[in-house]
Amino acid sequence: MSTPELVALPVHTPRPVPPGMLAELKERFGDRCSTALVVREQHGRDESPFDVPPPEAVVFAESTAEVAEAVALAARHRVPVIPYGVGSSLEGHLLAVQGGISIDLSRMNQVLRLNAEDLTVTVQPGVTRMQLNNEIRHSGLFFPIDPGADASIGGMAATRASGTNAVRYGTMRDNVLALEVVTAAGEVIRTGTRAKKSSAGYDLTRLMVGSEGTLGVITEITLRLVPQPESVSAAVCSFPSVADAVATTIEVIQMGVPIARCELLDANAVRAVNRHDKLNLQESPMLLMEFHGSAASVQEQAELVQDIARGHGGQAFEWATTPEERTRLWTARHHAYFAALQTQPGCRTVTTDTCVPISRLAECIGQAVTDAEDAGLPYYIVGHVGDGNFHIAYLIDPARPGDRVLAEQLNDRLVHHALSLEGTCTGEHGVGLHKQGFLLDEAGAGTVQMMRTIKRALDPHDILNPGKIFGP
Amino acid sequence: MSTPELVALPVHTPRPVPPGMLAELKERFGDRCSTALVVREQHGRDESPFDVPPPEAVVFAESTAEVAEAVALAARHRVPVIPYGVGSSLEGHLLAVQGGISIDLSRMNQVLRLNAEDLTVTVQPGVTRMQLNNEIRHSGLFFPIDPGADASIGGMAATRASGTNAVRYGTMRDNVLALEVVTAAGEVIRTGTRAKKSSAGYDLTRLMVGSEGTLGVITEITLRLVPQPESVSAAVCSFPSVADAVATTIEVIQMGVPIARCELLDANAVRAVNRHDKLNLQESPMLLMEFHGSAASVQEQAELVQDIARGHGGQAFEWATTPEERTRLWTARHHAYFAALQTQPGCRTVTTDTCVPISRLAECIGQAVTDAEDAGLPYYIVGHVGDGNFHIAYLIDPARPGDRVLAEQLNDRLVHHALSLEGTCTGEHGVGLHKQGFLLDEAGAGTVQMMRTIKRALDPHDILNPGKIFGP
Repeated sequence: MSTPELVALPVHTPRPVPPGMLAELKERFGDRCSTALVVREQHGRDESPFDVPPPEAVVFAESTAEVAEAVALAARHRVPVIPYGVGSSLEGHLLAVQGGISIDLSRMNQVLRLNAEDLTVTVQPGVTRMQLNNEIRHSGLFFPIDPGADASIGGMAATRASGTNAVRYGTMRDNVLALEVVTAAGEVIRTGTRAKKSSAGYDLTRLMVGSEGTLGVITEITLRLVPQPESVSAAVCSFPSVADAVATTIEVIQMGVPIARCELLDANAVRAVNRHDKLNLQESPMLLMEFHGSAASVQEQAELVQDIARGHGGQAFEWATTPEERTRLWTARHHAYFAALQTQPGCRTVTTDTCVPISRLAECIGQAVTDAEDAGLPYYIVGHVGDGNFHIAYLIDPARPGDRVLAEQLNDRLVHHALSLEGTCTGEHGVGLHKQGFLLDEAGAGTVQMMRTIKRALDPHDILNPGKIFGP
Repeated sequence: MSTPELVALPVHTPRPVPPGMLAELKERFGDRCSTALVVREQHGRDESPFDVPPPEAVVFAESTAEVAEAVALAARHRVPVIPYGVGSSLEGHLLAVQGGISIDLSRMNQVLRLNAEDLTVTVQPGVTRMQLNNEIRHSGLFFPIDPGADASIGGMAATRASGTNAVRYGTMRDNVLALEVVTAAGEVIRTGTRAKKSSAGYDLTRLMVGSEGTLGVITEITLRLVPQPESVSAAVCSFPSVADAVATTIEVIQMGVPIARCELLDANAVRAVNRHDKLNLQESPMLLMEFHGSAASVQEQAELVQDIARGHGGQAFEWATTPEERTRLWTARHHAYFAALQTQPGCRTVTTDTCVPISRLAECIGQAVTDAEDAGLPYYIVGHVGDGNFHIAYLIDPARPGDRVLAEQLNDRLVHHALSLEGTCTGEHGVGLHKQGFLLDEAGAGTVQMMRTIKRALDPHDILNPGKIFGP
């Protein structure tokens, strides 16, 4: 087993905010520039395990012009700028590893323009996905990307998020049409248009999506929406083994069934959500599925999938027919993380995020299970298996450093197995601080060098979320 | 009306190939480095109207290593390199405006690896789309992107091509999973993996797709495939006016019907293809549609669309039920360009490529028709109207310079109208030489500056297809 990836952070040189700049910020933003420790700490910690001093100040921006002003000021003083949405990122994206200021975008939370007739909506970056869907519900449209957390749209774009609906509707890569971005110089540019497709020059929209705040601060996002399906059905199906559930998934995808969600929960995950959400799901590996379409098409899809599941030992579907039952199931699925944390008070998790070609999924997940069992660390698995993406979360006791090392070793081993299967180290969480070595292993030195060249060209003073994606 | 876009080319400084470099190429590639005028001319002209001297030499590469060698040599001598597939690009992409060498990739035409179980295939850049579909037919899968011409996959990736199936299956942006690319330094890098999604760093795949050979030479492409639909039906429906056909399209898209193709031909286009392909289509505006899915779903879609069409004066569908009839119809559609050229022997066309949000399509196309009628130039319209993308082609007599000026004025007016409707100057043909001013109008100076910054960073000596997308 190779050395585990980044149990400790690489050394970054702090870049202090000069008193003059802080004074300027205070003067310009008044109360909306905070240096209170509690505010800074709230903006300097995410779900990642790293312990890093918080940013020196937090600016609560209320407009694109304000973001541009703050970035221009930071550019003048060569001070790091870290965009902040709701803080739900998982890979240390918002940690102030080189100090600097956090720009909180949560007050930029307006749905600016719904163009229902074009199936598009333009929003500010602090709009959350649930807020968006509430505000557009009357239109008969919805925004399908659902990473679980009620993340901000800006953050979802910055990390190229996906989640449970991606198997049918794609990821943020596929659903962002246009952006407004504040550059490293504090200038405001626009990428893309509301047209559905374009060949007009470099695809800067896609370059910004997934750039984790390192190439620009996203201040406006135009999204593609989809019509609410005429009919929605959700079902759970239990299997004798994870392998059987995965085999079912592979066949469903290979047959081209347009399934809207196809999520795996292993027995450990089911056990945890049963306890947390007071459900009575059978505590064996389970697929949680959703079908969207016309009534006839949903029935057709469901029958086909039931046939396939039966061939792999799947039990009869249990249907969640009402919207309330569906919501209850999906809420439980989204609680898996917190539910698992509660199984061992005080524990934390190390969560993997590999994604492999669908035909390799059984091998990848099978080996991960074997390794986890052999290691004796508690774990659970949830997965967007229809995309070949799954998360195995190892539960660790922060008081026992050996736990973390062991979990990182398992993660390392899983990532390299996934790479050997032509997969990726991160299906949806991003690189952040935690996967920089993995990125190098995956993409190769020449490709990462090209990324660095772009970063240097667009942000020559390295002020935009420095230390993320690439090391210092 | 503003000055028409680029009736004449901007002045480029030629960059001669030093005799020493030519000798090295001859030594390395033997007969596969040609300086014969006929070969050079074949590689120095496309469907665009510009008259430019051909490249000084053409290298027929047979492997990635050979491409890398040729580019490295060109890099050493600061000589332009222009990738060549089959020469079907429309915007002057392959013209040697600054001289240099053409690298012909058509001999790199192997389907390298079909992974049917993952719905992916990896090909060399010279594979054409028809060849690909022939070679993978046995797998039950197909590659849906169909720009009309039997273009090379490398060229389609480089121009972010789309075409008739994009309304359902997306464009090259959506269907390229991974690339192998030779950089400006002659190094070989890989972007992406065979996993369906990833958040591993900058999306270099999408940056290369649509970069028109200016950021790298694409030497290998991994594509997403889709299962051949269980059932396929094609139909034509005639309408009293273009406006009625467009209104039908808008409603179909807004209802979320997963129509696979939705093409408009105006009466002029129908007349031309009737004559060229000996068909008896009613010579009025027409939608040519295709439905993919299960038998039940195809029927459901078709019934819905017929209802909508009826509401806009559409006549009963005429069905093309056999594969032969379907092929005949689609071949006719793809012949529209050549069919129209034959209506006026010796004429050429100026073809527009705007794409607008679907709700703006009626206004955009209506104004274009009015302007063309008022100008008195012959024209025809074909359009991927389901995407909001259409081509109005003005027929011009090359012997009358006024024709070209008039056509460019109409194009200019149409583009600016489309931009005012939040559309794009190019839905699928790319910028090339012809739309550089339009790109600036569309994206803005700051955004184009960011593109230029990336270009300069990745190709500091400007050897990769110089003069395209941006001026000298």
